[in-house]
Amino acid sequence: MYYLGVDLGGTTIKVGLVNETYQIIQSISGPTGRERSFEEVLKDMAMLCKAVMDKEGITEEDIHSIGIGSPGIASPNEGVILSSSNLNFDHVNVRHEIQKYIHTDVYVENDANCAALGEVICGAAKGEDNVIVVTLGTGVGGGIIANGKINRGSFFGAGEIGHQVISFEGGLQCGCGRKGCWEQYASATALIRQAKEAVAKHPESQILALAKDGKIENINAKVVFDAAKTGDKVASDVLETYYKYIACGLTNLINTLEPSMIVLGGGMSAQKEYLTNPVTKYVQEEMYGGLSLKTKITAATLGNDAGIIGAAFLGTTL
Amino acid sequence: MYYLGVDLGGTTIKVGLVNETYQIIQSISGPTGRERSFEEVLKDMAMLCKAVMDKEGITEEDIHSIGIGSPGIASPNEGVILSSSNLNFDHVNVRHEIQKYIHTDVYVENDANCAALGEVICGAAKGEDNVIVVTLGTGVGGGIIANGKINRGSFFGAGEIGHQVISFEGGLQCGCGRKGCWEQYASATALIRQAKEAVAKHPESQILALAKDGKIENINAKVVFDAAKTGDKVASDVLETYYKYIACGLTNLINTLEPSMIVLGGGMSAQKEYLTNPVTKYVQEEMYGGLSLKTKITAATLGNDAGIIGAAFLGTTL
Repeated sequence: MYYLGVDLGGTTIKVGLVNETYQIIQSISGPTGRERSFEEVLKDMAMLCKAVMDKEGITEEDIHSIGIGSPGIASPNEGVILSSSNLNFDHVNVRHEIQKYIHTDVYVENDANCAALGEVICGAAKGEDNVIVVTLGTGVGGGIIANGKINRGSFFGAGEIGHQVISFEGGLQCGCGRKGCWEQYASATALIRQAKEAVAKHPESQILALAKDGKIENINAKVVFDAAKTGDKVASDVLETYYKYIACGLTNLINTLEPSMIVLGGGMSAQKEYLTNPVTKYVQEEMYGGLSLKTKITAATLGNDAGIIGAAFLGTTL
Repeated sequence: MYYLGVDLGGTTIKVGLVNETYQIIQSISGPTGRERSFEEVLKDMAMLCKAVMDKEGITEEDIHSIGIGSPGIASPNEGVILSSSNLNFDHVNVRHEIQKYIHTDVYVENDANCAALGEVICGAAKGEDNVIVVTLGTGVGGGIIANGKINRGSFFGAGEIGHQVISFEGGLQCGCGRKGCWEQYASATALIRQAKEAVAKHPESQILALAKDGKIENINAKVVFDAAKTGDKVASDVLETYYKYIACGLTNLINTLEPSMIVLGGGMSAQKEYLTNPVTKYVQEEMYGGLSLKTKITAATLGNDAGIIGAAFLGTTL
């Protein structure tokens, strides 16, 4: 039996064919073309699914189900994307559209939730059943897994952990409408902003030297870590503050939900223990009454595959 | 069949005998005497349980189980209080002690979790299965109910929602060790502090006039609400800010967990819609991208009985 997982992004549709041991054995991708009607976008998606099956020489009968991870809010059991501003989808019955072309079960789910499920099924959190996967990327996303299932909340919108306010007074404006959201301090975007601010004051920093062409606009998260690894104090200071921001939101989540594991995903997870060790230290310092931290904090291991694998197995975990 | 619920506080032990329709039909209380050994405290608790059964003329055979709500962290299935600084209990096997005197099942649970369970079983959240009960009292406590069961997290410590930091920089020192915890802004204690600060600047406020003997040290939460109801602007301003603090933490919880209902409990719940209406308005203003708020915010209805009723039914919901 095979499982089709789809990562429906604002720019690209990626389709992966996953086997029973959670390996992506074939994949294909194409442009989303989100300016088009949902019928056209989803027809293309179905064609990509067919193409990946053809590549492996299998048919509909060999497919357990198709799972689709999408930005926005979805009702997985009904196969409907309720809203997605990235895609201009409003109450789109994805199942119905896909089944015009492929006769199999179709599920849809928020993409961050899919990535979280992937890490729990076969990634960093394999074997854990009470997990929060925190995606530190352009924004801060998340997925909460309780007893091996995605916690969607009562209206499919749970897991928006990046939109917890950690700076009530004078906080930075967030795209969600609130001020002071964690995302504004702990995302990769935030780290880059913090690094640029530091470089403006300390142009001698290795951060600038390591940025492509030595230009401030080319600073990215990796450059900041690389600069710190050379012993650059400006970079180290930026990162220490950044770790504390991450630790603040993580401790909030631990005090509320006390998962057995928190997985840090997104582009930042490539830093592995350079990220998780200092963050763990700061979370420990914040623990209630100095009690010892029981939640394990670790880096994601599946990278971009997490979303596709999680989506592929949606139909088995509902 | 009857259910015994115990509220084991730092000062008083309250025991209630609850019938199958969730009514406390007999109750009794006695001093905790927490300076004594746990064996002595728990022997007294067992005697109170026996006394309340005698009052109703029933025996051990008529009792389903004894449930005990306690401050601190408990392992419900094992009947052990793992730690409770209020009681100086450290890994105390409560079940073992009680069963020296009464032969029935014994369960223990954090007291805020018991109160939350009570409100879900037969209070404000009856019929809801995804609920957060927020206790606004001396501190801010909470209990999270998912699918009708207490969410204890992986190590029995979940639900410490008062210890989410909402003021990362320059926040008020919290007893838990962190700075800027929600509890420091949204508890009844915090409201009283905020009112006192306002009165220091505006001694003409009705807040002071309504406080017992017109003394600033006698300001309590009710006085602030009463002053606002007379049209006092100082009191209204204090409350508006206070509502926003409450709304900040509630919105964080909604973005993370999206419960179907949030119940506001503790002493503050007596204000009912004077509390829940403005808080709901401010939460709505904070909703992601202006989406409409689906979570219902309501006041607790069981008052102090919630903890005893929730404890009494622990054995039926594990």
